Order: sequence, then structure tokens, then C-alpha cells
Amino acid sequence: MESLLIRGKAVCPFMGRTSTATLRAMSASSSIINVATRCPVMKKALAVSAARGTRGGAFGGYRAYHAASKPPRANLHTTAAKEAQAVDLPSPRHDYVPPMNKSGGAVPQHVHSKPPPPPQAAKYDYEGFYKTELDKKHKDKSYRYFNNINRLAQEFPRAHMSTPEERVTVWCSNDYLGMGRNPRVLKKMHETLDTYGAGAGGTRNISGHNQHAIALEKTLADLHAKESALVFTSCYVANDATLATLGSKMPNCVILSDNMNHASMIQGIRHSGAKKVVFKHNDMADLEAKLAALDPDAPKIIAFESVYSMCGSIGPIEEICDLADKYGAITFLDEVHAVGMYGPNGAGVAEHLDYETYANGGNPKGTVMNRVDIITGTLGKAYGCVGGYIAGSAQMVDTIRSLAPGFIFTTSLPPSNMAGAKTAIEYQASYQGDRRLQQLHTRAVKETLNAMDIPVIPNPSHIIPCLVGNAEVAKKASDLLLEKHQIYVQAINYPTVPVGQERLRITPTPGHTREFREHLVQALDSVWNELGIKRTSDWAREGGFIGVGVKNAEAVEPLWTDDQLGLTDVVREMKSGQGALGVLENVLEQEREQVRAVAAAA
Amino acid sequence: MESLLIRGKAVCPFMGRTSTATLRAMSASSSIINVATRCPVMKKALAVSAARGTRGGAFGGYRAYHAASKPPRANLHTTAAKEAQAVDLPSPRHDYVPPMNKSGGAVPQHVHSKPPPPPQAAKYDYEGFYKTELDKKHKDKSYRYFNNINRLAQEFPRAHMSTPEERVTVWCSNDYLGMGRNPRVLKKMHETLDTYGAGAGGTRNISGHNQHAIALEKTLADLHAKESALVFTSCYVANDATLATLGSKMPNCVILSDNMNHASMIQGIRHSGAKKVVFKHNDMADLEAKLAALDPDAPKIIAFESVYSMCGSIGPIEEICDLADKYGAITFLDEVHAVGMYGPNGAGVAEHLDYETYANGGNPKGTVMNRVDIITGTLGKAYGCVGGYIAGSAQMVDTIRSLAPGFIFTTSLPPSNMAGAKTAIEYQASYQGDRRLQQLHTRAVKETLNAMDIPVIPNPSHIIPCLVGNAEVAKKASDLLLEKHQIYVQAINYPTVPVGQERLRITPTPGHTREFREHLVQALDSVWNELGIKRTSDWAREGGFIGVGVKNAEAVEPLWTDDQLGLTDVVREMKSGQGALGVLENVLEQEREQVRAVAAAA
Repeated sequence: MESLLIRGKAVCPFMGRTSTATLRAMSASSSIINVATRCPVMKKALAVSAARGTRGGAFGGYRAYHAASKPPRANLHTTAAKEAQAVDLPSPRHDYVPPMNKSGGAVPQHVHSKPPPPPQAAKYDYEGFYKTELDKKHKDKSYRYFNNINRLAQEFPRAHMSTPEERVTVWCSNDYLGMGRNPRVLKKMHETLDTYGAGAGGTRNISGHNQHAIALEKTLADLHAKESALVFTSCYVANDATLATLGSKMPNCVILSDNMNHASMIQGIRHSGAKKVVFKHNDMADLEAKLAALDPDAPKIIAFESVYSMCGSIGPIEEICDLADKYGAITFLDEVHAVGMYGPNGAGVAEHLDYETYANGGNPKGTVMNRVDIITGTLGKAYGCVGGYIAGSAQMVDTIRSLAPGFIFTTSLPPSNMAGAKTAIEYQASYQGDRRLQQLHTRAVKETLNAMDIPVIPNPSHIIPCLVGNAEVAKKASDLLLEKHQIYVQAINYPTVPVGQERLRITPTPGHTREFREHLVQALDSVWNELGIKRTSDWAREGGFIGVGVKNAEAVEPLWTDDQLGLTDVVREMKSGQGALGVLENVLEQEREQVRAVAAAA
Repeated sequence: MESLLIRGKAVCPFMGRTSTATLRAMSASSSIINVATRCPVMKKALAVSAARGTRGGAFGGYRAYHAASKPPRANLHTTAAKEAQAVDLPSPRHDYVPPMNKSGGAVPQHVHSKPPPPPQAAKYDYEGFYKTELDKKHKDKSYRYFNNINRLAQEFPRAHMSTPEERVTVWCSNDYLGMGRNPRVLKKMHETLDTYGAGAGGTRNISGHNQHAIALEKTLADLHAKESALVFTSCYVANDATLATLGSKMPNCVILSDNMNHASMIQGIRHSGAKKVVFKHNDMADLEAKLAALDPDAPKIIAFESVYSMCGSIGPIEEICDLADKYGAITFLDEVHAVGMYGPNGAGVAEHLDYETYANGGNPKGTVMNRVDIITGTLGKAYGCVGGYIAGSAQMVDTIRSLAPGFIFTTSLPPSNMAGAKTAIEYQASYQGDRRLQQLHTRAVKETLNAMDIPVIPNPSHIIPCLVGNAEVAKKASDLLLEKHQIYVQAINYPTVPVGQERLRITPTPGHTREFREHLVQALDSVWNELGIKRTSDWAREGGFIGVGVKNAEAVEPLWTDDQLGLTDVVREMKSGQGALGVLENVLEQEREQVRAVAAAA
């Protein structure tokens, strides 16, 4: 201790200015330890020492740990020095460090007569942290209860709950067209499973690349009239990986993001570390002002969606392309809720805007879809399968393929999933019946709900958001529909929608025939009554809210026109008062029969 | 202009202190614009104006743009103000902004006789950027060329290339046990496809939760003797989402990361924004020093792997648990390359360390696997399917389920993929034959290569990394094996391994019977000769490198012991010189027959 004091006086300001006698006395009474706990140098050493227990004291603990450690075990931890690292980042490389425990060739067996475990430190309360986070979710009613919904391919759109007998009708699936039970898709998947097995067996670089991936990417590139496409395990990953890679690699990149963009884009932008500029939803004046304020030379990406899934609004794709051209930006368009659903080939809203050109196999040059730089989409919604993708220029796609860790370091989708998705895309490119019937069912439900004073947030797409306006009531409405009416519509609460805008999001499909639709609207009416949920007229008395009950509001016309749906004559008849609903139902019945016949011919 | 001057003098410091006459003169000569370009208020407005062109001048452009814009189109962009946003983050909400283009009910048709496009800005050279990035990859030889490998379920481990006739033997798949063609797995998948369709149809919260997810998560929790498990679309997403969520939500969290950790963990840590401390690969002294230097009260996560896939080294799980206990950290163990492969139930290396306890159905309390806090694994390698997961305490899993955007906002895995994976896990938990045979084949190949002076980086696992040491040569070796010998082994180059450590990574399976193995070693020998690749003895002459050719190195014993493989008697016979290889081959043949019989009984 004496020599420690002498050395300490030489290096420590406190010890230097304190007499040796005082230090000696403090040391004897241990009161020096109290001083040391306030010293920036000693504080940490004392904490380590305390954690290690008393053996060897503050300075001896480290060595003691090594000496007293485990029984001999084999050299499991490899002898390879400076080893592989699956990283694209610069990272420290270290010299060879021999494994701690050596043995003379003993087998690497776990020995149960081991020494008592080392003393434990005061531990951060991890379980307490988890509990606090969960309590918060319960408190603000954002805690999610998942419903056990087993969608039945042979009884679409029906499903069973936990027991096979308990049937419900699903009214909120994103299998918008019922392609998940399409006979051609299933046939292709069965064949592919038998020939190529259950899984891909590797990343795209290591044995997971195959004819299914090649063919699917070719189909997707053709669908969007782009040079190339790249498939990911999901469109969440596609959006995240692509935006993160571009935003981080392009120097001084700025990403302009619609304020209703999906979480996957928000995460991608965040992960990129690039400057993020949020513009008001679909507001071109705001977007332009923000573009104009940026450095004209900097790379800029405008990220937005075609169909915004929780409200059904549609992005002004052409106007955004105009602004992108004007300000030297590129466009990143998420068509996740639109592919399969819009356009004569099902390529999405961008294709739909040039309906005639694409329907007639015209030249895509100069079309809106052609002008969009990067299109992303999913294989898991209207195409009924799983996976996501990007499409764009060959060099852009190759850059993402070569740089994005979320693409490179993950196992490929199984061959059967890729083959099934390709079949679904081709089916939808060759036949419009499913999406036309889906649109007709959407119109029918929206019209009936409007007539029944049930508040539908107006929009031009296939989404039917019924405004509830309260998290607890929305969940109750969903539970009541399920338990009392055997109808499954998930409540959409914060953070998916803002507080006060809670809703039931209804998604009709070609399978939601008349009896299902009548059952739905009656059930909704009953639930609205039972829970006293505001009607459209109630919202109107308050001056309207998010488009519901707004006086003298302009009509929102559906993106699919009467002409495109072959309805022009029908609408004329309906408007002239000749048994409106009956006429529409006749059209629906004819469409339905045709859809059935085409699917059966698979 | 005069009234502008008067108003300007009232609010602008510059105009206020400049005489009206001077301002009037500056305005007439436009020199006021030069001053304005230096003004923080006017600068931006001028940039907007310039970008909009000259029409209307600096103050009139905005209105002019609105007046002169597109031909009438329908109100596509919804009327909903303050709409939904799929974000967990605080974000600006904006007041209602009416859509720019209105019409009196015209259909939303794209009109081709549109006005000339607006003037274009000098654009950042996006294609030039892509080209530069790709050129870099070509230049440093890290550009990846994917091979078209179609693994044939009925001819495992064979595959065909682009044409069905062109057969090759796959020696680098991560379908380590051939479960991708297991009859029980395929049968289950076929049945599930027919009953429940091709896709899940939604996120887990919105119609994508079902009995398959529930059952699979229960199976996974049981496998790892944990309270709960959660399935993701991949283990890349599981690792990324879990580390990012915990690291960002726990205040002052520090994540300690082995320097060979997989890209998914590195991304997760980066995305968390938490403090990252990298420790030397498998170096407990370094890890302890780093733990000891941290605030004892701060939450800490030690993230590491059991089997490091590119070199085959194995993490010291028990020692890391000891350190975690000592310093109040939790452990995050990636068992991606170990599940299905180690342990009497296939739960991974952590289970294998208590082989006897788990083999006898003993109490897991106090075992290594029980001590690990978070285990992550994949369904896409030894289990032959697709997807990833985490397992741990009920509250931890519920927290990730409730907070991680990468889990919440993505479509669930399809029912058939989940059902197939569950069957694979159960099969491997009930039968050890596949992984034992895999280990025997691994031993046989390693021993033969060692005897042939072909450099294998020593390790205790099922990975056979053959050192080449040069990117170009490694690719040539891989190409030569494929073209000349019909053997597919992908070259592993930077950034997956460090420059100078390029290798061929060979992964035997139960399907790699004697003739395949003999073919492989002969082909490797031929390629090594043809390209003049260094032999083990060459490395030895240079003093050894990453474990290859190191003099007097300790033997690395395999994790699967002779006893566990039932080889004790065989090894004794072999050591006594009674026709060594013949004895092993007899054992292999018997094992193989049994594996076949069990699979056929499906």
C-alpha cells in the first residue's frame, strides 16, 4: 500500500496535494474509497472490482477470474485468426488472440459439475423495461390483439377461426383478387414444390439464384415496361433496402417524402441517413416549394405511393413526374396496393393513367409509367403470394443488387413462391375480370353505405375506410362484427392512423357476392346502432371531417371509369331510374360467371 | 412596385435603412435582385422563382403555375385532409390543402394532347452514379455473378443449370440436411396450399395471423425452451428489427458485437442508433475488458453467433453468458447456421452443450440454452424452408411484436411455408439421422482433403472452408469446377471475407454419398493443380495463415463427438489400422439406409 501511495502522489492531482500521513490514515480507514468513487479515473475501476466480487480486491480481480475459470474444454472457438466478416463496412481487424480455454484434445463436452457461477452485477431491469413498453401500448389502446383467421381457399372469402367449424367472412384481406386460391397459381406451386423443393437453400449469390428468380424478374420488368427488376423477400425490405442504399450512397442526397408514406419508406429514409424533407400529402405546391429550396445540383428522390392503403387516396403521379423533371429529381413510386388492381395489364395506377395506350399495346415511351424512375410493388396482396420488388433502369437495379445488404445477405424466396407469383402476374396481365369485378363490388358497397348514412371516407380507389373516430369503439365494433355477425374487419387504430381517425378498413374482392355484401351492410348498420357510432349526417352537423359529411364537396370519381368497366350503358339505365340496383346486380352476376369460367379453365 | 417598396421598408432591415430613392433606382436597374440573393429571406423565394421560369417574375410565378397547369382531371387525390400515416414516429400534421386540379366530374383519363413538358433543371447524373458504383465493384473484383442453379428435389444434391439437361452437383447449399425435399415437409405444404391458399393476404395484425403462425411460434418456443417466439419473413429481418428496436428503445443501451457478426446484426445495431462496441472474434478477455469499461447501470446487449458461417468457428456461448451475468448484460445469440444441425433436438449449439440433459428430456433450468436471453434462427437453411424468428421471454417477444416496424408492417409468411417449416422442425426434433450423417460426411471430406494437402481452415463445425487467398483465382476455381467438373461451389470473396482470405465454402449434406465425395475431392485436386493454388504445405512453409499450415497447432475437435455420433467403436477399429476408410464407409452406408427409410415413411 505504501508504494502505491508514493506512485499515486506522482500521477493523481488529489493524492499529490494531500499529505502522505492523511492518505495513510484514509487508506487504513477505507475512507479513501469514498473519495475514489468521485474520481473519474477510479470510479470505473471500482465498479468493475465490485462486480467481480472481492476475490483479489480492486486490482486482483481480473487475473483471478482467468485463473479460476472453467474446467478444460476443447478448442471449439476455432484457431482461425483475422477471420471472415460479412460486412460492407470498414471495420477493425484484430490480431490473432488464442482461445481462452485449451485442452490436450479433450472432447468438447459440457461438464455439469461446474464451479459456482460468478457473482452477478446489479442488472438493468430488462423485464421491467419490456413491461413498461407494453403497459404504454395498453394504456393508449394501441396494443394489438391478433385474430386467428384461417382463410379457406375453397370457400373464399370465408375463413375459420381457431376451430375449423367457426366460420367467418373476411372483409379486410389484401388478397384483393383472391389470387391466393387461383387454380393456375396453385397448380404451378404444386408442380414447382415437387420438382424444386420447399426452400431456395441459399442467398441469391450462394446457390439461391435460379430460373424462377430470373423469369419472375423478367416478367416484372416487362409488366412495368422497365429494363430490369429485382425481387426481395417483401416490399417492406425492397423499400427499406432501396431507399437506404440510394440515400446513403449518393453524395448529399435529399429524399422528399409524402407525409402519408408507408413505414417501410420512412424506415428506408431514416436508415439512409440522407436529408429528409416531408411534403404534405398529395400537395404539389408544397412539394414544389420544397424542391425549389434545395440545392439544384444535389441528387433528390421523391418517394410516394399510388394508392395510400389506409384512406384510399391516390397520388398525383404525373404531376410529381413533372416536378421531378423540373427540379432534376428522380421518382420512387410504391405501387404496393395498386399492382394487379389498376391498368389494363394490372401494372398499377401509373399504367392506368395511360389506359388506352397500354390496352392497345402501344409504345410506352412518354407514358406516366415510363416516366417514373423506380417502381416498387408486392407479390403478396393482389397477386396473392409473397415477396416484393423494384423495377427501373438496368444500372439502378444492378446497383441495388450489388450494394444493398438487405438483398445480398438473405435467403431467396422459395422457387414455388416465385413461380406462383409469376403465374399470378401473367394471369392478371391476360385477364381483367377479377379487378373489374372487384371495382364493381367496391362501388356497390360504397353506394349502399352512403345511402345508409354510414360514413365512408371518400376516395377514388378500391379501399372502403369507414370512419369511427375512437380507438376503443373501433375495436369494439370489430369485435362485435366478428362475434355477433361472423364478419372479420380489423379495426385500424393509432399509430397506423392518427388518433381520432380510427376506422374499419373494408376491402371487397371478386368473391364478395351479393349475399356477402348484404350481410356486411346490415351488420355494419346494426353495429353502428348498437355502439352509437356517428353517422355521416352526424359528421355533417359538425361541419365534416376528413372528407366525411363535407357540405358541397366535389364528387370523388373512381379511377376505374364507367367506360373502362363497360358500365356506360348500365349507368345510363340506372340514371333513368329503371330499377338501378337490379341492373347493376345483373352485370355483376354476368361478370362473376365469366371470372369463374376463366379460373376453372386453368 | 411603389407600394411594395413602402411595405418592404416597414419589415426589412436593409430596405428600412436605405432611402426610397435609392431603392427605386436599384429596382429600376434590377440591381436590387443582386442584393436580394444575399438576403436569408429572399434567397429561397428567388430560387423558387428562377426554377419556375420567368412567367410572372419573382412574385408572380407561383400563381401562374397553378393557372397554367394540366388539362382538367378528376379529383383523384382524395378530399381527405389530415390523413392516415403508417408511422410510429412523431410527424407533422398539416391542414387541409385542396387538390390542385379540379374538374366538374370529368373522368380521370390521361389526355395525350397535353401541353409541352415544363423546362428541365440541370439534373444530377443518376445513371452516371450507378455506373461509377458498378465500375468500383468490377474493379475490386467484388462484382457478383449469380449462377442459375435449379436444385432438384428428386435428385438431391443435384441441380440443373439454365437448361434441364445440364446437371451439376451442388456443394454449397445451406439446405444442409436436404429438408427442402423431405417428403413429410412437402406433403404438409401441398395440403396447406390446397386448404389455405398461396399467400397470407395481410400483415399479422390485418388478416395475416392464423393457426399456422400460432403453431409454428409455439413449436419454436418449445424447441429453445423459451416462453415465446416470433416469426419474421427472414432472420435478416428478425436480427435487424430486434436489435434496432431494443437498441433504440432502451435508454443508453450499448450493444457489444463480435467482429465477425453477420450483416443483419450489424445493420440492426446501426439502425438502433445505440452505442456499438465491437469485440475481437470469440475473445473473452477483450469482451470482458469492454464490458468492464461501460456504465454498470446501462442496459447492454452482447450480440454474437453460435456457428460463424464463413469460417465455421463456434462462439463460446457459456463464457459469454457468464460475462453477461457478471456485468448485467443480456445475450443475443444468432443460431442461424446451427438450428437443425446441433443438439439432440436440433435446437442448435446452445442445446448441444448440454447434450445429455436434453437427450434425456431433463430439466432445461440452468443449461446454456436456458441462460441465453434471445435466440434467433432461420427456417431457410437446415429446415429447408423460408423465414426467421426470435425466441425468449414472453414480455421481450411481445415488446418486439408490438414495436418493431419490420414485423408489424409486412405481409406474413404464407400458411404453407409456415406449416412446412413446423413439420421440418418437428421431424428434426424427433430424428437425429440427417444431422449425424451430415457430420459424418463432413468428417470424411475434411479428412480426405487434409490427406490430399488441400487447405481446409480448421473448425469444429459442419463448414468446410477451402482457402484460396485471391479473389480472381477463387472465382476461376469456382467456374472451373462448374464448367469442367459439373460441381457447384460458390467462391466467397470480399466483402463477405477479408481480402486475401478468399475461399471455396463447401457444405456437405446427408445426400453427399461416397461417389459424390470422391468426385468432389478429385475435382478439387485437379483445379488446385490447374490453377496452381497453394496447398496446405505451401502455407506451412510461409508459417501458416488463419489456421492453415500452422505448425504444432492444437487439434480442433468437432463439436459432435465420436460418442454422440456412435463412432467410438469405429474410431477404435480405425485407429488399430483395420481398413480405416472401409469401416467408416460401412457406417455411412448403414446411416444412409436408415435416413432413407425414415424419410420414406412420411
